[in-house]
Amino acid sequence: MAQVKSAVLQLKPGDEVAVALRDIFAGEVLAPFDLRAAAAIPFGHKVALRPLGQGEVIHRLGQPIGLATSAIAAGSHVHLHNMGFEASMAGHAIGTRLSNAPAREPSDIPTFEGYLRADGKVGTRNYVGVLTSVNCSALVARMVADHFRDPGRLLPYPGVDGVVALTHKSGCSVADGSMSMKMLRRTLAGYARHPNFSGVLLVGLGCEDNQIDQLIEEEKLELGDGLAKLVMQETGGTRSSISRGIEMVEAMLEKAATKQRQKIPAGEIMVGLQCGGSDSFSGISANPALGAAVDRLVACGGTAILAETPEIYGAENLLLERAVSDEVGQRLIGLLEWWDEYTSREPQGFDNNPSPGNKAGGLTTILEKSLGAVAKGGTTNLVEVYGYGRPIDKRGLVFMDSPGFDPMSATGQVASGANLIAFTTGRGSCFGCRPAPSVKLATNSEMFARMEEDMDINCGTILDGDCSIEEMGEVIFREMIATASGKATKSELLGYGDDEFAPWHVNAWL
Amino acid sequence: MAQVKSAVLQLKPGDEVAVALRDIFAGEVLAPFDLRAAAAIPFGHKVALRPLGQGEVIHRLGQPIGLATSAIAAGSHVHLHNMGFEASMAGHAIGTRLSNAPAREPSDIPTFEGYLRADGKVGTRNYVGVLTSVNCSALVARMVADHFRDPGRLLPYPGVDGVVALTHKSGCSVADGSMSMKMLRRTLAGYARHPNFSGVLLVGLGCEDNQIDQLIEEEKLELGDGLAKLVMQETGGTRSSISRGIEMVEAMLEKAATKQRQKIPAGEIMVGLQCGGSDSFSGISANPALGAAVDRLVACGGTAILAETPEIYGAENLLLERAVSDEVGQRLIGLLEWWDEYTSREPQGFDNNPSPGNKAGGLTTILEKSLGAVAKGGTTNLVEVYGYGRPIDKRGLVFMDSPGFDPMSATGQVASGANLIAFTTGRGSCFGCRPAPSVKLATNSEMFARMEEDMDINCGTILDGDCSIEEMGEVIFREMIATASGKATKSELLGYGDDEFAPWHVNAWL
Ligand SMILES: [Ca+2]
Ligand SMILES: [Ca+2]
Ligand SMILES: [Ca+2]
Ligand SMILES: [Ca+2]
Ligand SMILES: [Ca+2]
Repeated sequence: MAQVKSAVLQLKPGDEVAVALRDIFAGEVLAPFDLRAAAAIPFGHKVALRPLGQGEVIHRLGQPIGLATSAIAAGSHVHLHNMGFEASMAGHAIGTRLSNAPAREPSDIPTFEGYLRADGKVGTRNYVGVLTSVNCSALVARMVADHFRDPGRLLPYPGVDGVVALTHKSGCSVADGSMSMKMLRRTLAGYARHPNFSGVLLVGLGCEDNQIDQLIEEEKLELGDGLAKLVMQETGGTRSSISRGIEMVEAMLEKAATKQRQKIPAGEIMVGLQCGGSDSFSGISANPALGAAVDRLVACGGTAILAETPEIYGAENLLLERAVSDEVGQRLIGLLEWWDEYTSREPQGFDNNPSPGNKAGGLTTILEKSLGAVAKGGTTNLVEVYGYGRPIDKRGLVFMDSPGFDPMSATGQVASGANLIAFTTGRGSCFGCRPAPSVKLATNSEMFARMEEDMDINCGTILDGDCSIEEMGEVIFREMIATASGKATKSELLGYGDDEFAPWHVNAWL
Repeated sequence: MAQVKSAVLQLKPGDEVAVALRDIFAGEVLAPFDLRAAAAIPFGHKVALRPLGQGEVIHRLGQPIGLATSAIAAGSHVHLHNMGFEASMAGHAIGTRLSNAPAREPSDIPTFEGYLRADGKVGTRNYVGVLTSVNCSALVARMVADHFRDPGRLLPYPGVDGVVALTHKSGCSVADGSMSMKMLRRTLAGYARHPNFSGVLLVGLGCEDNQIDQLIEEEKLELGDGLAKLVMQETGGTRSSISRGIEMVEAMLEKAATKQRQKIPAGEIMVGLQCGGSDSFSGISANPALGAAVDRLVACGGTAILAETPEIYGAENLLLERAVSDEVGQRLIGLLEWWDEYTSREPQGFDNNPSPGNKAGGLTTILEKSLGAVAKGGTTNLVEVYGYGRPIDKRGLVFMDSPGFDPMSATGQVASGANLIAFTTGRGSCFGCRPAPSVKLATNSEMFARMEEDMDINCGTILDGDCSIEEMGEVIFREMIATASGKATKSELLGYGDDEFAPWHVNAWL
């Protein structure tokens, strides 16, 4: 089965450079190309696959990452000494490099087995959720969910995935009208409406700043069969609130047990893209492979949410060039200006330029560094830009503002409507995000072997020469469909996904 | 048993004003005083107990809260129309009103049954703790502790209070050198060293910003019998980390089971003072009663930590006047200047002046409003001011910087060394703070009756006329000793104290 391992990897046909998969000596043949290295090429660094004239644009994964600053011979090492970029390449030009990827014919669009909810949204899981307005009600929420950890207690409700308590450390000492309170309410509302929940119980203390009634009113939620509230100070205290909560959840479980999976076109999958614990392989194996899967999903009418604003800071050009309208581009520019202000008091400031360590690893320009993260989004057009946790109402590749911190970013994506998370990791992040399943994509075979109990797919086979980026994209796309249909991910089997609920907080704590 | 209910309460002998315990009509006798109301006095408002000349200082709970702005007859309503204050009363004079409360004779100091640790610190509980460097290891930490929830698994370790996992939603996307990273490490170190833990296991993922080795080095912790580390990416993944963690905790439990309680002077109690879910009774029943208990503890050589900086903002004079040195006073002033800056970008700004609602409730000046919170600290001198979570190294009343948010503030106090929390609440906050027991003090009898399963002591008996503030102070002080000796608090019986671990975060999330 194992093929002769390639020395270099061309990320996309047409790229003028390939990446060294190991340290290469001067004079070595650069398999699979019929070309010899003109100099030593360290692992992760670039080599020219053909002669380049001064000023020629250099592409990696089909994206412009810089210019040849002098003539470059085939087989040469390409790095700081002969590659740079003009200001225009990191500028704010909008829609200048739109993709014309075709949509698939309806007959070519695969289906998955999902839950069609009354509001038309489609779930990939069928949970009952217990959410909290404030930290003070976390124990009650957790105890209510704990009651149903005993599998015997769920036996009467076949087809229900479980009861999930998602708690947080906020909800008081947060001013009404502050951005943090708005984001907290928006996040809770996004979860309360999430199609992976058949029903949700909101538990509050009673005297918190984040009043449940106000949350319901501001977010236009409606109490009813699928949404109930429980206020501890009205109910009498901890024990009485727990027993009342258990009764309320039992009523929701009865309703949840009547729901059935049905055939749904793959275009109803909305995947949140994440990477955490990146390594030097992330940008050449798992991230581009995930991008290839996203291109397939988008061609089926599906939606992919790129996030982690700090990761694209300074290289927004890579997305602006593919923004479908000036409005969409301006919204992205506006987000980055907000981040300038948000981070202006940070001692370290805010700078995504390649660090000395990045440069030693072979990343030459900020465009190339950010491409590693942006690659997860594939190559289609950017159709919309959303604030943290705002409901996604367009199809295709979209951007949602968030920090790079995995749990905070994924929490926003799920609040926005993601019914699936695809998470690439090189170092081995252990992550789940209930009620959304999280497919874990390992960047390298060594880590996959060591942490196989946590990883769903080994994208390291790309580096081992066993599979191309496009082939791995197809594998990931099929795994998305299987997971959306109910196949349990590794992190679901391990019970991940409660601790990782982490709404973004930006204000001072009072 | 029930006495005739008083109409008004004089918080301290010598106060020129008393507080109406209900709405009082003009002409009513102001029992227990032989005096009639000269006008209607709404509930919570003040009445003059003797004639006051213009310019006379008015005291409540023995503390100056304002000046008579005109002559005031006995029995008159005292509020905005006849009371105000000069700038000097809210100024920054340091040490101008020092207390000379005597220390108790050693023979008068009660003892409790505590755990004397090798470093000389004294614990009130004997737990094994599982702490996390980062959110990504929360599930492993929780699963390790969960293993020991089965009482059968703790049977071989008599005298151990249990295994507690304390997790948080930080540890990555936090820059090294930032205030937030320093506070996170300081908090984790404070818990790792806490005398209520016999042993602590630190669980990390491996690639997080908050590296365990760096935490250990910066905070001068030492791995050994009482402190161990477990890194998931080195151990192989989730399942293998959980089983390894269980083995490591079992070794700590064996050691913990050898520890015995012994007689310790009450001066080794270090109590963190908290209030949450305040109501209009907080400032007249539970808070001053807790202050009376603190005065007793301080007289025994004990330590009480007042916190919640926003609650004293603008009325710092109340503490500065009792600061033992210029340095201590300047540190408190410095903290408030930091808060000015910290909150300068908040849409609501920062203002602790009585709101229209406070004024309608009878609070006239900012001094009077803040007195409600400061009253918890009693009347002794302020001996030191500490940053969030910094180790407390002085005895007596000290101040620790923190937000007003209960879990965040109490987490800092426990990190600073508090081996007990005393928490007053009017609305009925449900709160625990393992490994420290938290004594809950209800401000009123109605809430106490409704939420008795959550409340330890009913300070509402002060308002019912069944007990004085000083008598209740003695009750609370004895409960502190009993709790320190092992008596379980209501919140411990209910299992509170894990969700409430909430280190303060001040920086932007990256
Ligand atoms: Ca990152
Ligand atoms: Ca991330
Ligand atoms: Ca210890
Ligand atoms: Ca408060
Ligand atoms: Ca508080």
